[in-house]
Amino acid sequence: MSLSLTILGCHSATPRTFAHPTAQYLEINNRAFLIDCGEGTQVQLRKYKIKFSMINHVFISHLHGDHFFGLIGLISTFGLLNRQNDLHIYGPKGLKEIIVLQLNLSKSWVQFNIVFHELESSESQLIFEDEKVEVFTIPLEHRIYTNGFFFKEKTGERKLNMEAIKEYPEIDICDYQNIKNGKDFTKNNGEIIPNKELTLDPHKPLSYAFCSDTAYKPSIVSIIKNVDLLYHEATFLNDKKDLTQTTKHSTAEEAAKIAKKANVGQLIIGHYSSRYNDQKLFKEEAEAVFSKVILAQEGKIIKIDSKMPEELVIDYQNFS
Amino acid sequence: MSLSLTILGCHSATPRTFAHPTAQYLEINNRAFLIDCGEGTQVQLRKYKIKFSMINHVFISHLHGDHFFGLIGLISTFGLLNRQNDLHIYGPKGLKEIIVLQLNLSKSWVQFNIVFHELESSESQLIFEDEKVEVFTIPLEHRIYTNGFFFKEKTGERKLNMEAIKEYPEIDICDYQNIKNGKDFTKNNGEIIPNKELTLDPHKPLSYAFCSDTAYKPSIVSIIKNVDLLYHEATFLNDKKDLTQTTKHSTAEEAAKIAKKANVGQLIIGHYSSRYNDQKLFKEEAEAVFSKVILAQEGKIIKIDSKMPEELVIDYQNFS
Repeated sequence: MSLSLTILGCHSATPRTFAHPTAQYLEINNRAFLIDCGEGTQVQLRKYKIKFSMINHVFISHLHGDHFFGLIGLISTFGLLNRQNDLHIYGPKGLKEIIVLQLNLSKSWVQFNIVFHELESSESQLIFEDEKVEVFTIPLEHRIYTNGFFFKEKTGERKLNMEAIKEYPEIDICDYQNIKNGKDFTKNNGEIIPNKELTLDPHKPLSYAFCSDTAYKPSIVSIIKNVDLLYHEATFLNDKKDLTQTTKHSTAEEAAKIAKKANVGQLIIGHYSSRYNDQKLFKEEAEAVFSKVILAQEGKIIKIDSKMPEELVIDYQNFS
Repeated sequence: MSLSLTILGCHSATPRTFAHPTAQYLEINNRAFLIDCGEGTQVQLRKYKIKFSMINHVFISHLHGDHFFGLIGLISTFGLLNRQNDLHIYGPKGLKEIIVLQLNLSKSWVQFNIVFHELESSESQLIFEDEKVEVFTIPLEHRIYTNGFFFKEKTGERKLNMEAIKEYPEIDICDYQNIKNGKDFTKNNGEIIPNKELTLDPHKPLSYAFCSDTAYKPSIVSIIKNVDLLYHEATFLNDKKDLTQTTKHSTAEEAAKIAKKANVGQLIIGHYSSRYNDQKLFKEEAEAVFSKVILAQEGKIIKIDSKMPEELVIDYQNFS
């Protein structure tokens, strides 16, 4: 089980040549998700060699432009590329109206299905589930209705302990799935071999929480407790803490406080205000509270593999 | 009188790292206009050092994404930058609904006035006029309602011929404006000095026509006749002429035919399909019909100065 997060953009507000608005590409347990889609995201996806065909599920946190203005362009490009697969879009109520209006007025109806999952609840909800992954909303506190997203691998089946199984010739290959599912094995003589003798624990399921944009909101800690990787916005440093009240953003210190309270594995911070030139200051401020801090940077890829539970494998792969 | 056109993007369909969709910045007779605004235009404006405060009038040819998806982002950025001046937007009916819906849903109402001039007519119309410049629509033929735009300097006042004026000591400085306006001068003895003795012709007014997207449409020639600079789309080469029927685009040869029929000063072609890697082929195909052909390229600036009527001054200033 593994998780790979690519930062496509991590700056707040207006896009600039070297400062792209929020967009992330997550692969978790062989599932792929696009999270937020600021203007220019389709260009960033191409730059970082992410295949458009991988993207079947897009999650939009809120309807501020730096988090969704790139979506209509991405959809249009999918259309021009003759996409056939359904596209699922999860985002605040209103997003469907925005997309449909533009497709109608441009007479550019796409040939694939767009399935809108519009969100309105202020409670955490399960919004995606298949046999490998589930995704929950994380209600955030911002100037408009905003959700973060919590991506969790499902616990896999137990692994066969082949050394132990070899001791029992009566166990046939067709018994393996039952054993993986946790069943004990009953020998012909009635003797029961407990499942725990025959199996090993499955890999620890991995999880990723995306929290942007939001004011400091400690109530999210119960949702994201023990997450392996947390992205939490850090628009400001403490010197501008007064601005967090009106803008409903967080400081780097506040992001780190959430990480500490939630006992997360690693914290990524981003969504930097253009006021600041030196991102190291964000890292320093956060690290005073929580030690494992990663600065979001365009093109950075963070990888975690559950086969190495003691050590997060972090790969900084900077294409730029 | 002078004209300066900056190509911000000149490719068709989907934006890519080195292929930006249509956007142009025109300065003519000290007036500034943004023409089309594909995704990423605000980043291109910054890249080519065009001050956002110069842009008070935006012209959108049609509602295909590669010509307007960048507009909502530009407007939002104007808002974040605390713009105060009115912004005038000229484009097809429906554009207002798209912009207003997104500003409403994001609760990001801007503090400046946005004045929408929605277009529906299939006839050429005067849509902007002040004391220096006028702008007319050029009805084009595309899959959806589309206009080109014809920017014309107004004829300036006549210039004083100071050599001649010196011959008449009775002419006072306070007579100059009347003479510039074309009036004859009457001496104290009743003798009339004809205006043409005292003045020189004003500089020839310059003009620019933007024609994208469109199928070959010879009826536009009467509108753009003798224009100094014509941008005409050339999405395809002749090898794909069959595609112009369904897509309602033009070939490079067709763009050149329009230029020739309209007796234009110079032709710029662009809106290249991503099928083609070598833009020189577009130039060659067009030049077989019309000799003065410029390839649109990102960052290229074309300047014309009416003080040098015999020779267009063309400056290729490539920042990329």
